[in-house]
Amino acid sequence: MKTQNLNHDLISQGAFPNSRKVYVSGKLHPIHVAMREILLSDTHAKDNEVEKNTPVTVYDTSGPYTDPKHTIDISKGLSPLRSEWIKKRGDVTEFQELSSGYGRERTQNPETADIRFPETRKPLKASPGQCITQFYYASRGIITPEMEYVAIRENQRIDELRENYGNNYPETYITPEFVCDEIAVGRAMIPANINHPEAEPMIIGSKFKVKINANIGNSALSSGIEEEVEKAGWAFRWGADTIMDLSTGNHIHETREWIIRNSPVPVGTVPLYQALEKVNGKIEDLTWEIFKDTLIEQAEQGVDYFTIHAGLLWRHIPRTIKRLTGIVSRGGSIMAKWSMYHHKENFLYTHFDEICEILATYDVGISLGDGLRPGSIHDANDKAQIAELKVLGELTQIARKHFVQVLIEGPGHVPMHKIRENVELQQKYCDNAPFYVLGPLTTDIAPGYDHITSAIGAAMIGAEGVAMLCYVTQKEHLGLPDKDDVKQAVITYKLAAHAADLAKGFPGAQVRDDAMSKARFEFRWKDQFCLALDTDTAMAFHDQTLPDEGSKVSHFCSMCGEHFCSMKNSHELKDMAEKMEEKKREFMESGGEIHVPS
Amino acid sequence: MKTQNLNHDLISQGAFPNSRKVYVSGKLHPIHVAMREILLSDTHAKDNEVEKNTPVTVYDTSGPYTDPKHTIDISKGLSPLRSEWIKKRGDVTEFQELSSGYGRERTQNPETADIRFPETRKPLKASPGQCITQFYYASRGIITPEMEYVAIRENQRIDELRENYGNNYPETYITPEFVCDEIAVGRAMIPANINHPEAEPMIIGSKFKVKINANIGNSALSSGIEEEVEKAGWAFRWGADTIMDLSTGNHIHETREWIIRNSPVPVGTVPLYQALEKVNGKIEDLTWEIFKDTLIEQAEQGVDYFTIHAGLLWRHIPRTIKRLTGIVSRGGSIMAKWSMYHHKENFLYTHFDEICEILATYDVGISLGDGLRPGSIHDANDKAQIAELKVLGELTQIARKHFVQVLIEGPGHVPMHKIRENVELQQKYCDNAPFYVLGPLTTDIAPGYDHITSAIGAAMIGAEGVAMLCYVTQKEHLGLPDKDDVKQAVITYKLAAHAADLAKGFPGAQVRDDAMSKARFEFRWKDQFCLALDTDTAMAFHDQTLPDEGSKVSHFCSMCGEHFCSMKNSHELKDMAEKMEEKKREFMESGGEIHVPS
Repeated sequence: MKTQNLNHDLISQGAFPNSRKVYVSGKLHPIHVAMREILLSDTHAKDNEVEKNTPVTVYDTSGPYTDPKHTIDISKGLSPLRSEWIKKRGDVTEFQELSSGYGRERTQNPETADIRFPETRKPLKASPGQCITQFYYASRGIITPEMEYVAIRENQRIDELRENYGNNYPETYITPEFVCDEIAVGRAMIPANINHPEAEPMIIGSKFKVKINANIGNSALSSGIEEEVEKAGWAFRWGADTIMDLSTGNHIHETREWIIRNSPVPVGTVPLYQALEKVNGKIEDLTWEIFKDTLIEQAEQGVDYFTIHAGLLWRHIPRTIKRLTGIVSRGGSIMAKWSMYHHKENFLYTHFDEICEILATYDVGISLGDGLRPGSIHDANDKAQIAELKVLGELTQIARKHFVQVLIEGPGHVPMHKIRENVELQQKYCDNAPFYVLGPLTTDIAPGYDHITSAIGAAMIGAEGVAMLCYVTQKEHLGLPDKDDVKQAVITYKLAAHAADLAKGFPGAQVRDDAMSKARFEFRWKDQFCLALDTDTAMAFHDQTLPDEGSKVSHFCSMCGEHFCSMKNSHELKDMAEKMEEKKREFMESGGEIHVPS
Repeated sequence: MKTQNLNHDLISQGAFPNSRKVYVSGKLHPIHVAMREILLSDTHAKDNEVEKNTPVTVYDTSGPYTDPKHTIDISKGLSPLRSEWIKKRGDVTEFQELSSGYGRERTQNPETADIRFPETRKPLKASPGQCITQFYYASRGIITPEMEYVAIRENQRIDELRENYGNNYPETYITPEFVCDEIAVGRAMIPANINHPEAEPMIIGSKFKVKINANIGNSALSSGIEEEVEKAGWAFRWGADTIMDLSTGNHIHETREWIIRNSPVPVGTVPLYQALEKVNGKIEDLTWEIFKDTLIEQAEQGVDYFTIHAGLLWRHIPRTIKRLTGIVSRGGSIMAKWSMYHHKENFLYTHFDEICEILATYDVGISLGDGLRPGSIHDANDKAQIAELKVLGELTQIARKHFVQVLIEGPGHVPMHKIRENVELQQKYCDNAPFYVLGPLTTDIAPGYDHITSAIGAAMIGAEGVAMLCYVTQKEHLGLPDKDDVKQAVITYKLAAHAADLAKGFPGAQVRDDAMSKARFEFRWKDQFCLALDTDTAMAFHDQTLPDEGSKVSHFCSMCGEHFCSMKNSHELKDMAEKMEEKKREFMESGGEIHVPS
């Protein structure tokens, strides 16, 4: 496998149909925020009047891949959008070589020469005595380009749309100042490692659009670099706001480098997985030193947030023994086993201050892992989970002292009636730090459909204020997801997150729904396809029974046929009702009385 | 097309894997309630101890098709399970010929001879002066075999399982008396037309398991009898509690006959569709007489419940003009248009007493259609919808006077934050009559995934007390669903209904989840597949990466691989923790002090 020769076409690219990339400029900073504009056809009324339909601007995670003006070369990586912003702040230092011993070894290793990412960029670190995290800046009232970027991005030109779609839409309220305030109080975070300047800034917080994460990564049994890079591209093309590389197989270091250099979205990892690979899977051989070097190695590659299972303590372990499904977090089970082997407290907890110091040096966010998340409906919201959650709250306060940006991870498996309680406890114990939840699955009995069992929980928990939803694919509990599974899960979570945005009353969320409904009522089929989260599937389903072009302007579809199309009837009805109202007026004006039919 | 020669294999049949059909006998009546028992393998502990796992009994809608002892001949239809019960009550009369002129014509028409269902059974009607509905019996405190049947069916042998699964499970509370009481107050109904004796009784009500309905039926553009009969079989095999035949194309009468005679679940229709076909789709030509004859025709075939759009009144129509998506109910748009043409009130409203009299004669339930259900997020819970809902409440009281069993239909498209309000209004205006809801879709932007956008709403509204969920397929808004779409939607709604049962705390609902989780934690892969709602898909997904038989006893899967399997770790951890607890005890007993690691 010679990854250097990877085909440019390997990663999915090309504009979305009837869409163009637009860039909205900043007012405070010289930034250009990328969005997707969906162009709509005109409405043709019966009297030959033509109504223009305003294009709909939507949040776009696909990066430069969907901008035809941009040339993609995955062996070079994306342009470093944020490099200038970072350097301009004057608080970072460029180093000649990597700080991680393992990292340096990998750049020299002849065995991995063929699969190594060809371009190198020198690592950045905070200059001595400097704090360089977005959280630190926010706490000092400094509005960074990243903050302005996300403010503009969240708004999606709602101010313009409002003019066209009327007063249903509230005033835009996402200002750069608001972003800054939310980060300053720890209620939101922008994952923005200074060594991942390719990423377009995005914000995770309860007052913002609900975000979704897609897990990719190989396992010892399956998948290679090419497949994972393409999976990553596929994930953000369809809407993943962040991706996590959870690789546990071969060439973790190299796979990650390829992914990060080509990722316009923040990348998260669980560094423990790679640390364990370094000791050949022998949990007892794990050490703080190996883990620490792994943190530094990954931070200098540009990982934007780390899941760290520091809240699972020695005293919690007995509480898991009576569970139906024990410990189902990979990281949690590893650290619990390590503790038991060595009869020592979890080293991620005992070294937590040091971890925060390292993370602050690069502005890597910390995602406090829920090592004791329930793995079944039976174990949901149990004492073990809540006990760990309290510790995550303590750790949140420590991380904040270091100005490290924090996420709190949550379960997992939760029946619907326990979802609100789960969020309330998290908010209480963790002082409103943004909550990042896996699913949750609302039943255990549908393997093969766990993207759906969990989308139900995800939509509900998103509406309760969870900031980011980690997807679950249909392969969950059964095997490693492939590219199709990734797409299906991303779209499923995208729709769940959007349903949550509607329920939260997020400003402008309903614009796309309304544009879709209008297109539907007016039989503008192509507009419906283009406004859909997944144009290809919507169109393919329609064309399965009515493939000819003529059917894309028909006033019915194969579901009901022509006579039974309620929308068609409804249009005729509208005309009739309007004429009747007119007649009624004339009649009343001439002094008549109205007869109510019976 | 010679339907008389339809192949027996046309309809899906055969036992579910590792399952057997069991029949639980009644105590009040000589009834045998069919259930599916899933047999599980033993748990092998490390010390060679063997633990037997109690089989799990699950609610089974698949009828005799999954009982290998039963011979299926679809040209004969199913055995008339309820015939004796009905006759024994002594309140019905068998007639020599059909009461419907159209019905009689169809039995003689040489053009349809080839596609006519070959067997005929004489129609039954209530004897003069007799009321024969389950509602009537319940109001007199009579516990029918149907009521005892559903009580046993709802319990699923929870009393036996409780002994094996411990005190997590509350006492069974579904008694025949409880069923009788719920029906008597109009909070539940058993669709049970005396001319559909093949159906296994089931109950629809907020205090019972949440049910799901699958819509089948052809449209003018697509599908024939064979395909629809197979879709019906496919739907109840995978879990549809009722099916609605919404055919609007050719041979509606004959298609329905084949479906009903072979359906072990109640069948619903919208008689207006066929009435409209009879006037060649010309709404203005519809008359009460044609509609009335259609009611009788279908009632004598055995349709168990009719959707009737009697609540959409003349005065409501102007309220729909400003909607984004007008009237999206097919029946609603037809009746509104009819009213406008003739400048008359909806004849389904003006003839409502007569409709009830006809329905009571056969014990056909009425499902009061929501002709003004919203067709978009924009129109959800609007004034038009609520105005109609109030009329449905008035009609409920009228139907109850005739002892007609009532369902109330609901939307459609509802964002999550308006779901509870929707249910509360329905309960208030319709005096707690069982609510039967389509979806609802929680966003409009994901055509191609509307089984999921709506499963989110369906699970939530089920948890709020909705009694039956009408599925939405992934083809919704795009085309007529095929067999695969039907299965996918049924499984999706089954998991949503189950998630709702868990949230409602329905007794015993969690048994299957817990059995699944235990099988999962013990790496009993085959048991996991068999406990899944869709065994075939779960197994196929697993086998995609690890197809060999050995992998079905492996202590890991391709998702994480061996070293990273948290469940595997968790087992080892459990052993370690148990040994440690033991050592601690010995140590303490010998007078030692415990050292807490740090």
